[in-house]
Amino acid sequence: METTTEAGAATKRAARVGGRIFNFSPGPAMLPDEVMLRAQQEFLNYAGMGASILEISHRSKEFVAVAEEAASLFRELVSLPDNYSVLFMHGGAKMQFSAVPMNLIGLKAAHRAAYVETGVFSAGAIKDAAPYGAIETIASGRADKFVRIPELDMARLPKEVSYLHITTNNTAYGTRWNKFPETGDVPLVGDATSEILSRVMDYSQFGLVYASFQKNLGPAGTALVAIRKELFGHALPFTPPLLNYAAVDKGQSLGNTPSTFNIYFAREVMRSIKQQGGVREIERRNDLKAQLLYDVLDQSKFYKPLVDKAHRSIMNVTFDLPSAELLDAFLKEAAREGLYALKGYREVGGVRASIYNGMPLEGAEALASFMKEFERRRG
Amino acid sequence: METTTEAGAATKRAARVGGRIFNFSPGPAMLPDEVMLRAQQEFLNYAGMGASILEISHRSKEFVAVAEEAASLFRELVSLPDNYSVLFMHGGAKMQFSAVPMNLIGLKAAHRAAYVETGVFSAGAIKDAAPYGAIETIASGRADKFVRIPELDMARLPKEVSYLHITTNNTAYGTRWNKFPETGDVPLVGDATSEILSRVMDYSQFGLVYASFQKNLGPAGTALVAIRKELFGHALPFTPPLLNYAAVDKGQSLGNTPSTFNIYFAREVMRSIKQQGGVREIERRNDLKAQLLYDVLDQSKFYKPLVDKAHRSIMNVTFDLPSAELLDAFLKEAAREGLYALKGYREVGGVRASIYNGMPLEGAEALASFMKEFERRRG
Repeated sequence: METTTEAGAATKRAARVGGRIFNFSPGPAMLPDEVMLRAQQEFLNYAGMGASILEISHRSKEFVAVAEEAASLFRELVSLPDNYSVLFMHGGAKMQFSAVPMNLIGLKAAHRAAYVETGVFSAGAIKDAAPYGAIETIASGRADKFVRIPELDMARLPKEVSYLHITTNNTAYGTRWNKFPETGDVPLVGDATSEILSRVMDYSQFGLVYASFQKNLGPAGTALVAIRKELFGHALPFTPPLLNYAAVDKGQSLGNTPSTFNIYFAREVMRSIKQQGGVREIERRNDLKAQLLYDVLDQSKFYKPLVDKAHRSIMNVTFDLPSAELLDAFLKEAAREGLYALKGYREVGGVRASIYNGMPLEGAEALASFMKEFERRRG
Repeated sequence: METTTEAGAATKRAARVGGRIFNFSPGPAMLPDEVMLRAQQEFLNYAGMGASILEISHRSKEFVAVAEEAASLFRELVSLPDNYSVLFMHGGAKMQFSAVPMNLIGLKAAHRAAYVETGVFSAGAIKDAAPYGAIETIASGRADKFVRIPELDMARLPKEVSYLHITTNNTAYGTRWNKFPETGDVPLVGDATSEILSRVMDYSQFGLVYASFQKNLGPAGTALVAIRKELFGHALPFTPPLLNYAAVDKGQSLGNTPSTFNIYFAREVMRSIKQQGGVREIERRNDLKAQLLYDVLDQSKFYKPLVDKAHRSIMNVTFDLPSAELLDAFLKEAAREGLYALKGYREVGGVRASIYNGMPLEGAEALASFMKEFERRRG
């Protein structure tokens, strides 16, 4: 007996805080209810100051404490080694597509960098790096339509490249790296935008990890950068100060006015993750949510998963339906059930359910139930 | 009979929404109560969508409508000529300190630009432009300790400079340009961060005007750029796409995920300005607020105004007290009266009252009363 009749779904929706639906948007994405509520409650008056967190100086002791706690919570949650800095920078991942080569391609005289193309955003990173040196795509999933992470022969990684760039989770296709390449002396750079703080990752494998805020950290417009300090000091001479990692680090991300609300929000998100038991516990819940949906796909002859089992993301679950008409009906009926923003990426099509940290288990359950019910009716 | 006894001030404070104090922070700064309230009210559920404005795609029809309305409200409020574009860009004014030369210094083969130094932020703009060409400070108020806007002999502006950069209002010192230089064929670039939408300005005098959000537009982390379209297309080859005006314009500021919450907030601010009667009415109120404070200064032998009458800002009112002890007592007692963040800029000292659009008349009245009362007691 399923509970996804329209009445059932309506009851579930009504039970949710503030009339909120289950929002499967790929980003900006659903943020945790408890953090949204807290931010709303103290929106006019932060910590009894009589002013909003939006309205106080980034140099006030109250905001400096917020920024410091945000950075130190991140360190704690990912067990970041001491020789790494945590930076909050303007712009999202796309700004890092430029900042990474501007800062790191000068690490070696050849000004070469290697990239792996695994989807839409890694392709964007490759394109945006082009003005800064010789950018080599050493592996690509393009011929396979990005349904899997390509094999990498690390013996073929040129020793003179300044870094190797990967996208750890691919939002548009719904794939992820399960085992990160071992790059030896070559710094590994990871765009973890769509999975930061969603699974346990060994940051010591990376020279640099960056992530936009708008999936697992908070409002759009800011990126978190975790960088091994020895990589500082090689920025190209025309690098803007706000994109220069060493300069941002020197100012402890407060050298100019940062996105104070976003950093505050990310602190609240990380406080909540810590309270729930840390990244390991969050990963367990995320695995559970994803498994609910993948189980439906694996037991169905109706839905067509879009990517290889071995490289499935637990953040973005993608699949298609037997026809454009059924896809259209699926998306429309899902929306009526309060299951929002399930349309696949425009270049990929089909359905994409983005189930970031902010998506409660009930959301994945509601979608799994709807999928089964839809298949029974229309399959 | 003044009303600034502690009890009187407490009553005023209690009457304000959400226990909010009068916040004279230079930025991030006090935002209009009515906008803060509205943003709080619909924080969990925007326009009945069941999701926050923070949580929906920047490409959703709902957000695209927000961004379009924000841009068109700005056009309307400042009577922007048709041959200008309005852009929303990541980072505040400091990001523009790099973006302006990256985009405009290539307008002429000499790669020269002229700057006027009128305070802390114009000095920052000059410094950050240095990597991109020959940057010439054609006039500076430094010898006068920035108490006035220096005289400019436009006949001496080299014809081969790509642009002339000024800071229209100087936050740290509290001065402003009353009459903008007539630059003929040389595009005039204005940093209007601390006074955007606060007074009537003729945008057709400028090739480009930019402003951080965090004083008169909304939360920190975003800049508004109004640019004459004929200036597109001269960016230096290494300009990051997100700092390239033509590229941002092509994507209508939505080419990557912008700070959606900030743009939404700015739209609400501009809706409110329009409803109140537009920039002319806002300017009238701002003049009134500033006059209240300047009247106290002009009638006092106790307070020492820091800048020349002829160049006084209506956004940042600066003055000093006869001694460090009195300054300290003034700031402490003001804070107890709910008059927050009055300490002057660290390189300037004294008192700075930032009275942006979000500061109600009552805030300026409360400060003026406190100043008179403090002078009576301690003068």
